[in-house]
Order: sequence, then C-alpha cells, then structure tokens
Amino acid sequence: MNNFNDDKNISKHIVRRLPRYFRFLGELSEKGVERISSTDLSKLMNVTASQIRQDLNKFGGFGQQGYGYNVNHLRREIGRILGIDVPHKVIMIGAGNLCSAIMHYRSFPRYGFNIVAAFDVCPNKIGKDINGIEILSMDKLESYIDENHIDIAVLTVPTSSAIEVFERLGKTSIKGIWNFAHVDIEMPNNIKVENVHLSESLMILSYNIADVEGHE
Amino acid sequence: MNNFNDDKNISKHIVRRLPRYFRFLGELSEKGVERISSTDLSKLMNVTASQIRQDLNKFGGFGQQGYGYNVNHLRREIGRILGIDVPHKVIMIGAGNLCSAIMHYRSFPRYGFNIVAAFDVCPNKIGKDINGIEILSMDKLESYIDENHIDIAVLTVPTSSAIEVFERLGKTSIKGIWNFAHVDIEMPNNIKVENVHLSESLMILSYNIADVEGHE
Repeated sequence: MNNFNDDKNISKHIVRRLPRYFRFLGELSEKGVERISSTDLSKLMNVTASQIRQDLNKFGGFGQQGYGYNVNHLRREIGRILGIDVPHKVIMIGAGNLCSAIMHYRSFPRYGFNIVAAFDVCPNKIGKDINGIEILSMDKLESYIDENHIDIAVLTVPTSSAIEVFERLGKTSIKGIWNFAHVDIEMPNNIKVENVHLSESLMILSYNIADVEGHE
Repeated sequence: MNNFNDDKNISKHIVRRLPRYFRFLGELSEKGVERISSTDLSKLMNVTASQIRQDLNKFGGFGQQGYGYNVNHLRREIGRILGIDVPHKVIMIGAGNLCSAIMHYRSFPRYGFNIVAAFDVCPNKIGKDINGIEILSMDKLESYIDENHIDIAVLTVPTSSAIEVFERLGKTSIKGIWNFAHVDIEMPNNIKVENVHLSESLMILSYNIADVEGHE
C-alpha cells in the first residue's frame, strides 16, 4: 500500500507515466548519475520539463531548486508509489506459448513479481514444469490462491475460456488480474484488472502506418 | 491508407478506442446482430452513449436516428479506418519465447497481419522454423525487408540489442515497428513505432492493487 491513497487527484494519466520515469531513473542510476535537473530529464525522456515538474509535484515533489532530482531517491519513491517495493506472488493461468514467454522475462522477478505456479486444464501439461515452475491442475486453482496468498493471476488462456476463469477468480482472495485474453470483464472493486490487448495495439500501429500524413 | 488523413482533429484517444469498437462489433456480428443503438452498445461496452456518438461522429457518423448503427457496416468502416482492410507483411526479429507466442496468435492472420519470416542472430536457430516460418540470419535483414516490401517488424530482441536493430531498421523501407523491447526510440516520421512495455503494464497493476481505496 502506498501513502497516496488519500490523494484523490492523481490522474490515471500521471500514474501511467510513472513506470517510464522509473525505467529512465533506473538507467541513469546504472550509469552512476546521482542527480538530474528536470530539463535534462525532459530531454532524455522526450517530454517537456514542465510536464515532469507537474507530474512529480503531484507526488510531493522530490526535486530541490537549483539541485535537481536525486536519482536514486526519486526512483525509490516512485517504486514505492507503484507498490513494487514489496514482492508480489504471481500465478500463471494457461500454460501455453505466451505463458512460457512471460515466465522467461528476466525483468519481472527483478521488480519483485515472483511466479510461484502455473495452471492448465491440459492433462499432458499438468505435473510438468516451465522454467522450474510446476504446472498444476485447474481443479486446484481456488484453494491454491487462498492458501498461498497469491496477489496476481496472469491470464493467458484462450478467449473462449477467459470468462469462466474470471468468474472463478472473482470468488478467491486474488488482488489483481493481468489479462492477456481478448475480453474485458467487470470485476468486484477489490480485484484490479489490467488488460494487455495485443491485437488492439497492433491495430493502432496499422492505423498509424495508414495515416502517413500524421495526426497529432 | 484511409480517407481521414485530411482530418487533423482525430485525437489519439479516439483512435486508441477504435480497436475496442471493432472487437465488440465483431462479437455482435458473430451473434447475428444486424443493428444496435448507441445506448445498447454503450451498455455492452461499459462507456456512455454520448461518448460512443461523439467518437463515431468524428469519423463521419455511421448511425441513423431511430435506427442505430448497422453492425457490419460500422465494423467494416472502422476496420478500414484502422487500415486492417488491407493485408500487412510482417517479420519477427528475435526468435525467442515471445516471438514464438506471437507467431501462434490466431487473431493476427485473421486481421491480415501475415508473418512471412523470422530473424535471429543465434546460429542454432537459423534455418529452423517456428510454426512453419523459417528463421533467417540477421545478416539478411535489410535486403529481405526491401526486396519483399515488408510493412511491419516485430521486435522481440533483448533490450541490449534493441537500439542497434532500431538503427538498422531506420535505413530500410519498413513502415512500422511493433516494439516489445524495453526502450523508446525516436524514429524518422515515416516509420511508426508502437511500444508494448509489458513490465510497465504490470507496474500499473501493482499500483492499482496497492491503491486499494481506489482513485478515479
């Protein structure tokens, strides 16, 4: 939980920009940069310095006039706001190709997202493992989540099964669903859903290609 | 190319909503629904009817008062605006797990995104195939793109190689890059880039979980 729950004015747009700040600050930190002005950060990130100041002031403002931002401090604070200063227990549902790709992503464990089990309906897969993580039967889904205090379920099942899985998850103690299935589901307010609709992203690219004259 | 290049007022936000309209209209069409009012569509999509009317009026407005929208016609028009009424030739760069997952996505060929080759630097992979598509050497990247009139390159290489690949693509006739590497690169205006930063999406989910009181 972060300290900013009482600030109802943080727009979704600002929140969506925070991971990008986090990434650039991480790269600066790796290069040994200790502090940076909003002007230099704005050039690096290709946004205006005023947007940077506005965004970060929303979170209390970590900069000091004439000094700029302390890179490590600001990165740590943004990490804390994003809730990635605490580890998350993650399960995969649907042990196919996309599941396998996600399980091999090295940056997820680095940010504290620890995959502890995968689930599938396919008898050929159950009992095997991906990257050392065992594939369990979907029969055990609810009990596993509740007994192991799982935070996040990653949904990489086909669209046709997704609604049923959402309904089952809705009755568990899961806190968040990272959904790659091509459906939008309304869940109770205590379960957060973040959708990654890959074909929609590809359509946007298609639009931008077609739109050669360029809109802003 | 679409007919709306002369309308500079189409906001990115509206464009980003079009694929979702396209998906819902496709589902209605599959169910045999021929027409729908903005009110019914708004309930289905969980947005306001006024937003639907505003969005679709931007594109000339396909609805008729008292009749609603013709589902197939509207879907076809949105598909045309998105540029997915024409096929796209696609190559994959980086033949790893994520590449394999994308190559097995059934919805991409359905929308006219046809993967014709994959590229990798790894000698063990070159000459093999994924899902029937041959893996070629990165040495052939530029000549293959230009000779085969490739529209889109999908980048699933590690972050460390991504910048070099972007630079190489910048000298080809490629029109768009669908980028899964964890970098943002500025490209010449004739090459469009659509980023899918998976770890940023997961951080947003983490924020929303931490933020249990719920912001709007």
